[in-house]
Parts: sequence; structure tokens; C-alpha cells
Amino acid sequence: MRKLLFIYLILIGLFVLYVYNYQIETENATTREWSENELKGNMDETYVMVTFQVGIDYWKPALKGFEDAAEALNVSVEYRGATQYDLNEEITVLEQVIAKNPAGIAVSTMDPEALNPVIDKAVDAGIPIVMFDADAPESKAYSFLGTDNYYAGVEAAHKMAELLDKDGEVGVITQPNQLNHQERTQGFQDTIFMEYSDMEVVTIKDGRGDQMLSRQVTEEIMTDFPDVDGIFATEANGGVGVGQAIVDNNLQESIEIISFDTDKGTLDMIEDGTISATLAQGTWEMGYWSLQFLFHLQHDIVEQEDENTPLPRYMDTGVTIVTQENVDSYYPH
Amino acid sequence: MRKLLFIYLILIGLFVLYVYNYQIETENATTREWSENELKGNMDETYVMVTFQVGIDYWKPALKGFEDAAEALNVSVEYRGATQYDLNEEITVLEQVIAKNPAGIAVSTMDPEALNPVIDKAVDAGIPIVMFDADAPESKAYSFLGTDNYYAGVEAAHKMAELLDKDGEVGVITQPNQLNHQERTQGFQDTIFMEYSDMEVVTIKDGRGDQMLSRQVTEEIMTDFPDVDGIFATEANGGVGVGQAIVDNNLQESIEIISFDTDKGTLDMIEDGTISATLAQGTWEMGYWSLQFLFHLQHDIVEQEDENTPLPRYMDTGVTIVTQENVDSYYPH
Repeated sequence: MRKLLFIYLILIGLFVLYVYNYQIETENATTREWSENELKGNMDETYVMVTFQVGIDYWKPALKGFEDAAEALNVSVEYRGATQYDLNEEITVLEQVIAKNPAGIAVSTMDPEALNPVIDKAVDAGIPIVMFDADAPESKAYSFLGTDNYYAGVEAAHKMAELLDKDGEVGVITQPNQLNHQERTQGFQDTIFMEYSDMEVVTIKDGRGDQMLSRQVTEEIMTDFPDVDGIFATEANGGVGVGQAIVDNNLQESIEIISFDTDKGTLDMIEDGTISATLAQGTWEMGYWSLQFLFHLQHDIVEQEDENTPLPRYMDTGVTIVTQENVDSYYPH
Repeated sequence: MRKLLFIYLILIGLFVLYVYNYQIETENATTREWSENELKGNMDETYVMVTFQVGIDYWKPALKGFEDAAEALNVSVEYRGATQYDLNEEITVLEQVIAKNPAGIAVSTMDPEALNPVIDKAVDAGIPIVMFDADAPESKAYSFLGTDNYYAGVEAAHKMAELLDKDGEVGVITQPNQLNHQERTQGFQDTIFMEYSDMEVVTIKDGRGDQMLSRQVTEEIMTDFPDVDGIFATEANGGVGVGQAIVDNNLQESIEIISFDTDKGTLDMIEDGTISATLAQGTWEMGYWSLQFLFHLQHDIVEQEDENTPLPRYMDTGVTIVTQENVDSYYPH
């Protein structure tokens, strides 16, 4: 009798467990029905990021963003590219990637035109391509995600005005033959001119993206304009060169430097106070939203009628100002 | 003995079911672990779109995009706004929306400055806000999604060149006191000047966004420049006025018109061949990506270090060229 009671109790217990599990299963069925519209891909879908100089730190946050989006969307990623600053190598790598028919490709190009035939071939074959960081504007790529360099110059001007209490003489060291540096300079110059009447851009010099040359050019500026209060370097090597010249002359207290990007040399000079601020580009955002855009193209999540422009044409991923206060979080971790 | 055997069989059966269900549960546990990063919200999260003149067709694709993204992300939406073109009403509505502490708000403003105090108050209180279609650039809103009007003018110029075989005289009818129209005109003018040497912009006239006045102004252009081959109207009412003047003078065959936006009057004139092309703005994209951006802010899916710019600063949602070939899909459906 006791044995039988025991067996019945077990039976009832198991029945309760069974009903409970059945309910869980039903809940999941509801979830599954909803998931038709869910932003969830398949791990077989592979999205590829293609760059040049694959080893440099600059791409790391972009790849991290690409990977973060892939994790959120349940798809796979690969990172490929030219090991050197070599155009033919990048073209070859891109062709190899296309041959594998991936779900989408995010490309940063060394040259605004040379990759166009390969990009166009891929788009014509139905492989979604977006450009990030450096555009190929005449190609058939669907979208470009990168820094608005004019606006970055505007931000640099506002920061310089803040550092100088809206009063003083400033110089710019740039690369006058490169479009992105022209735009940074123009945004800086226009903003100082239009919004800060007690400030003046007294000189714009060519540093050729070279540390030694930028150091020399800074010496020239200090000789020609002994009252100079600030220097904006539109590029990181130049910024470090300016910093060295300022240290050589022991002028850290009287000249404010604003630089660009966040390589280790620049961050170290921010930490020790030589450089006052630098502009960090939104590289994580470039990678994250590139993958989102490619996923939307691959899954056809676009307005039906927009056959020509299924995606936003351009995304300005913005800049963040890095100073001694927040420099720590910009070291690779 | 038989009874006991029967009970044992049931027990074994239930045990098998239990193990089977346990496995399903385990699988779900894995899914659940992954789903922390999943782009899936909660139906209790309500995102609100706020505009002015809520009844007009222009907002419909934007709201559709907002709703489509909400469905994909499993969150709720509401649409609110001023019924009229009334600034105080829009401010009141926005304040009411903020009082309910929603998960995020996408705002299109009638005025680039008047909403700033309310927007800033909401952002300070932790409510994510993005601007779409019309920006409040000095506010604390995280991002702006809208048409790059200069680039829209560039596209209009390329289309005009195509229509005229890169040869001829063109005029522009615009609203010279409004920034977005200045930009459209400038993009058009710069592109004709720099890229099409056999084309010339011979006149730029003020149509004040008025149909009757634009009709009169077109008559003046036809008198002053009898060889004019094309007219670009930077705004829809003006475009219809130009169309009427062309029909009055029976010049549909000799003058090409490019207009802006896709209200019914414009679409009808495209369908009957009076207007050659119009530029459709990416309003669906504005709504769709506004919700995506707000969701990413609410769920903190941004790079850890980017405290100041957690989102892209600006998204150009692009334009699509509408002609007789694809006009059907632009009528409300």
C-alpha cells in the first residue's frame, strides 16, 4: 500500500513537471512566430571587412564594432586585407573575398577610384558593399560611413576657443594636398573666423604628415609668430612633431596643441600634458553600422519603393574630444 | 503484478518525456544566454515620434519606417504632434510626451532653436532624443537624420544634364531665404558650373513656395530667356506652378522640369509628362533609423568609451529620382 502511494506521488510529481515544461515550450512557440521580423541572421552568413595595412591599431575599434553588430545579429564575420599599403594587394584580396560570395563586404579603400571596377562587379553580382572610413564615391557601393572632416575641424576650433578663452593667435599644420586635411583645415578656419572675433588663424603650414618636418615647421611658426597661443595639427604624426618642438622650447605652459586620432604617441603626450586635446574618430561606429547596413541589404529590410537608394547615402560617425580626463579609455584594452 | 508493470511503463514514459523536455529547456537556456546581445526590446518600451502638422501625407512614410523598426525590435510606438503649423502647440505636445517618460523620442522641429530648452531638459533627464527631417543643431539631441540638401541639388543637376544631353540653359525657382533651399540651389549651380561646360544656370528666381507666384515667375523666365531648356524647382508648390505655366504655353516638349518631394500634385504632373522628374526624400529611412538609434541609446549598445558621441552625429538619408517609370509606387498605398 505504501509503495503504491509512493509511486502515485512520483507520478503526480512527474505530471506536474511535464505540464510545467509544456508551458515553457508553448511560450517559445510564441517567440518563434514573432521572429519572422526579428533582426536575427544565420551563423552561415559571413560578412567580411576589407582594409589595407591590416596590422595597424587604427582598424581595431572598427573591427570590434563589426564583431559586436555580428554578435547582436547572430551572423559571422571575417577580417581580410592588404598587409601593406599596397593597392594591387588590396584589389587581389577583394577579388578573393568576392569569389567566396559572402553575405556582404565593408571596404575601406586606399584610393578613391582604383577599386571601383571590382566593387561594381560585386554589387552587380548581388553582393552588398558599403564603404567606411575612406570612400569610393563614384563606385556602386551603397553607402559611406566615415568622419565629416569639415565638421571635425569645426569641433577642433570650438575646443581651441575654449582652451584659449576665445582670445589669441593660432596656427595650423596640415597636408594641403589631401582632401580630408583640406576639409579639417577649412572647418577650423571658417569657425574661428565666423564665431571668435578675438581669435585669428595667423598661419597654415605643410607638415607632410611627417613628424620631423612638423617639428621644424613648428620652430618656424614660433620664430615668425612669437605670440602664437595654439596649434592645430590635422594629423597624428604632425601632432607629435609639434609636441616635440614645444617641449624642446619649454613652451608647454604657453602653447595649446590640438591633434587628430589616437595612436600611442599622441595619447602619451595627452597624458603628460604636452598635447591638450585630440580628436578621436568614431571607428567603432563605422564598423558597427557598416555591418547593420550590410545585414539590412542582405535581408532586404528596406522600403519597397526605394530601388535606387535602399540605404542612407552617408553617415557621419562623428568625433569625440580626448583630453587628460578621458585619455585612459583610449589606450588599447 | 500487471498493474505494477503498467505503472512502471507509465513512469518510464514520463521519465523519457521529462528528459526530452529538459533538453529543450537546455537549448533555450543557450538561446537565452545569447539573447543578452540580441536586438530585441520589450513591448512595454514606448518610443514616440513628434512632428507638426500631423495630418499631412509627408510624415506617413517616416511613421511607417518608425513602425517597421519597432516591429523588428519588438517595442511599441506612438505618434504625437501639433495638429497645426504651430510652434507653441508643438512645445506643449513635446512636454506632455516627456512627462510620460518614454523610452525615446524622435522629433522633427518647425524651428531650429525654439524647442531646445525642452529637448535639453529631456536629454538631461535621461530620455534619448534624436532629430529627423528638420534639425535643432544647438540642442542636446544625439543625432540628426535627414536629407543633405546640397547633395540633393547635385543629384538634380546630374538628372537635368541627362535630360538635356549635357547642353542648354537652365533656371532655378527657389526660396532664397530658407537654408535648405539655398543649399539645394547651391548644389545644383556648383555641379552645372563644374561638371557641364555646355550648360549654364541663366537665372535664379524667388517663387516664395507659392504656386501662383512660381507660375508668374516662370512666365518671366520664358520672356527673358526664350531659349531656356530646363527649370529646377527646389520645392513642390513651385514645381506645380512651373508645370502650369509650361502647359499654358504648350511648351511641355521643349522645357524639362525637375521638382522636389512627392505630393499628389507633383506625382500627377510626372504621370502626365509635364514634370520630367522629382526628388523623393528618404522619409522611410528617417523613421526607421531614428527608432534604431533611439533603441541603441536606450539599451546602451554603444562603444563604452564614447561618452560624448554614442551615436553617429548625422545620417544623410538620401534622395531617389522619381520619373514616369517609377511614379506609381510613390502614390500613397
